Amino acid sequence: MLSFADVTPEIVAALQGIVGDDYVIRSDPELLHYGRDETEDLQYRPDVAVRPATTDEVSRIMRLADEHGLAVTPRGAGTGLSGGALPVFGGIVLSVDRMNRILEIDENNLMTRVQPGVITGVLQDAVAEKGLYYPPDPASNGSCMIGGNIAENSGGPHCVKYGLTKDYVLSLEAVMPNGDVFRTGGKLRKDVAGYNLTQLLVGSEGTLAIVTEATLRLIPMPNFRRTLLAPFDSLDTAAKAIVAVYQSRITPAALEIVEQAALAAAVEHLGRDVPYADAEAQILLELDGTDEEALDRDLMKVGEVLLEIGALDVMLADTPAKERELWSVRKCLGEAVKKQAAYVECDTAVPPDKVPDLLRGVREVAAKYGIRQISYGHAGDGNIHVNVLTDNPDREAREKTLRPAIEAIFQVAVDLGGTITGEHGVGCSQSRYLSLCRDPVAMAAMVAIKNAFDPKGLLNPGKVLPSEVPPSLPVATV
Amino acid sequence: MLSFADVTPEIVAALQGIVGDDYVIRSDPELLHYGRDETEDLQYRPDVAVRPATTDEVSRIMRLADEHGLAVTPRGAGTGLSGGALPVFGGIVLSVDRMNRILEIDENNLMTRVQPGVITGVLQDAVAEKGLYYPPDPASNGSCMIGGNIAENSGGPHCVKYGLTKDYVLSLEAVMPNGDVFRTGGKLRKDVAGYNLTQLLVGSEGTLAIVTEATLRLIPMPNFRRTLLAPFDSLDTAAKAIVAVYQSRITPAALEIVEQAALAAAVEHLGRDVPYADAEAQILLELDGTDEEALDRDLMKVGEVLLEIGALDVMLADTPAKERELWSVRKCLGEAVKKQAAYVECDTAVPPDKVPDLLRGVREVAAKYGIRQISYGHAGDGNIHVNVLTDNPDREAREKTLRPAIEAIFQVAVDLGGTITGEHGVGCSQSRYLSLCRDPVAMAAMVAIKNAFDPKGLLNPGKVLPSEVPPSLPVATV
Repeated sequence: MLSFADVTPEIVAALQGIVGDDYVIRSDPELLHYGRDETEDLQYRPDVAVRPATTDEVSRIMRLADEHGLAVTPRGAGTGLSGGALPVFGGIVLSVDRMNRILEIDENNLMTRVQPGVITGVLQDAVAEKGLYYPPDPASNGSCMIGGNIAENSGGPHCVKYGLTKDYVLSLEAVMPNGDVFRTGGKLRKDVAGYNLTQLLVGSEGTLAIVTEATLRLIPMPNFRRTLLAPFDSLDTAAKAIVAVYQSRITPAALEIVEQAALAAAVEHLGRDVPYADAEAQILLELDGTDEEALDRDLMKVGEVLLEIGALDVMLADTPAKERELWSVRKCLGEAVKKQAAYVECDTAVPPDKVPDLLRGVREVAAKYGIRQISYGHAGDGNIHVNVLTDNPDREAREKTLRPAIEAIFQVAVDLGGTITGEHGVGCSQSRYLSLCRDPVAMAAMVAIKNAFDPKGLLNPGKVLPSEVPPSLPVATV
Repeated sequence: MLSFADVTPEIVAALQGIVGDDYVIRSDPELLHYGRDETEDLQYRPDVAVRPATTDEVSRIMRLADEHGLAVTPRGAGTGLSGGALPVFGGIVLSVDRMNRILEIDENNLMTRVQPGVITGVLQDAVAEKGLYYPPDPASNGSCMIGGNIAENSGGPHCVKYGLTKDYVLSLEAVMPNGDVFRTGGKLRKDVAGYNLTQLLVGSEGTLAIVTEATLRLIPMPNFRRTLLAPFDSLDTAAKAIVAVYQSRITPAALEIVEQAALAAAVEHLGRDVPYADAEAQILLELDGTDEEALDRDLMKVGEVLLEIGALDVMLADTPAKERELWSVRKCLGEAVKKQAAYVECDTAVPPDKVPDLLRGVREVAAKYGIRQISYGHAGDGNIHVNVLTDNPDREAREKTLRPAIEAIFQVAVDLGGTITGEHGVGCSQSRYLSLCRDPVAMAAMVAIKNAFDPKGLLNPGKVLPSEVPPSLPVATV
């Protein structure tokens, strides 16, 4: 197992010298906050957490870490779902939450420059005021930070039309593990000068460098929106509907699927009746655009496509209230699953037309291993969150039981041409499964890249690339 | 300077054993063909050119090269503009032109799988037949290959709305410099399993690995299109128009600018009169969409924006013939410049609202150094091709004269927050300028990445990263 130098009182004093006493956290319960994210109930304890305010402070912290051989785990809002922000080897947690300024909204060039601690929803609101749109919208929108979104290449329901975080990152400023600061480009829509360091850093989960500033692309706000909900009495028909939408050559702004078990969980969570709660699957489809008449023409066309393929009904929302109502089932699922039991979320993705095979395969795995599962997600992207539930309160025992089932679920996805993570990242919770979907040559290339950036292995150790990590503390103390 | 092992008769025999006698080229004039691309009049001579038909053959060639320490230069159609395909150290040219099959057009998932030797225009036609669109459209569309487009992250006029090649590459199969074959992912719209090797390879100009298959994203074909041409009597007004279009929140499908000197060159080349040939600049704007009425509403709005800002006129094309007519000036410029004199093309890019400052700065440099220049390009992307002309037939002498002017032009772009190449790539012709727009830390990271993939430095040596390369042969023998 990897090992790192201890955080001594001298190190703490040096950190205080860099960021000031107020921004060095050394004791519980504050410190425990920096040992959690939203991944299952995992819990670690860093030796110290530090909250720099500037790129220079980040650089000086990394120089200190490099000099002494300290583990550093960068952290945004701690809303990640793969343990990317967990300090699994203790050491220093470096929180970017104080670097939370929107530096510029450039309406001439449709770009924005932001610090990593800006909350995604705050940025979206700020640009919306100027008629602009920053589309990536993970479920944690209201609290997650752009820095974390970049680290994980975050997705969300609107990726199906607008792409992922990576598709909006034009350039970055970042700090190397040894403290060196660099930029990958500028406020440019086109720039092919050398290797694409920008895109290498996006999705690298803070293991190669720490992002301290990002230049992001914006697009004009689509001012009009329509939402449809279509229940189906068979998975296959729902799946055919996904393909039929693509074949209609209309690009939905969102295309979500909620399977029967997830519907049941939603009903229980919401404590009220839901239309077509006994459907085998429901499809939620959003259209948007800048021209209302054109949008309504597409809406009619999509509605017809869904009915023709066998939807039991097509419910339309044309007011914000009805829209919220149609989305309510899909949006409550994260909480609904959490309430049911302890769970592990498998963030599978497959080619979109393989979604029914994936859902069927997952049901077979569940039957074989005697586990409960709840599946839903971004059907248009083929990205299905499979939640494996367990009533066993003992984490180690349940991990042992669940692991073969989880691996079997990932194998179903990979056999369909899929991946073990569509949008959550690998972190420490999925790293042991990475080699299921990446061949040995690709794995070796990743290790070589990590060594090229971080030869001492100090930055976010235990993440992305498979490695042994210490066990979680017994129970998350929220 | 780098040095490599010789291509001995035994190596040639081994290559013949891998691909067959017919596909090993050893003598002029065929061999000279593999020593040129479209970059100025540069000319090198490889020792041998080899045309594999399969990934396995590419792998075996690379194993041979790795074993013997041979330089290998991968090649698509040889239409590049930065010398990316030039075998500057001789050795082996590896042409992918026989790997030219469209393996699959997947209408369910809106994706295609192709070999690297597929001609971009051929792919576009094939998917258009199914109502689908592959947008990246470099000027050499009719002859360039997808493999080269991926190597250079090629652009084109429609990037302003649809993005570059990188935005369409979902995953790759590639061969490492040592012959190992790997895949970076699958037919997936979302996949964050590990570092983004796909995006690291796109734009790496064949220096890290050889792409042998690509999975590309497609979008529904926008069936309707309108083209506008607006002349301006001042650069500043034309520039204001670019910003005003962005501020109108309409996204053009193309937004090109042609400056006075380029207009004059076009008139001379076309040998006929051109409307508003004496304008200080002309802007060519294309709109497209899937709804004709919405499109025409946008068209009216954009036309008004252009007139309000001070366009001398707004000419509209609503038939394919008129459209070709409006595009004729812009499209002939490559040839028109070529006919004028020997030239060096600086592929500058700046934030779009800095285009007028760039054009003014370039004029100042031209005056200071006594050079002629012709500028035009993708204004909406801030990507301006500055052609520096010279009447000196002696390449070495003219390089000496021109180099300070070229460096000054790049410096103007960089000072405006720009880059030395927006879409042509670095290759060998711009590598000496790379450090103008990339800081030493970023440069060191790129060197480390190259060493991680290609420790022996065999793959496309002398490209991207600054290094001394042998001089070109005296004159290109076309």
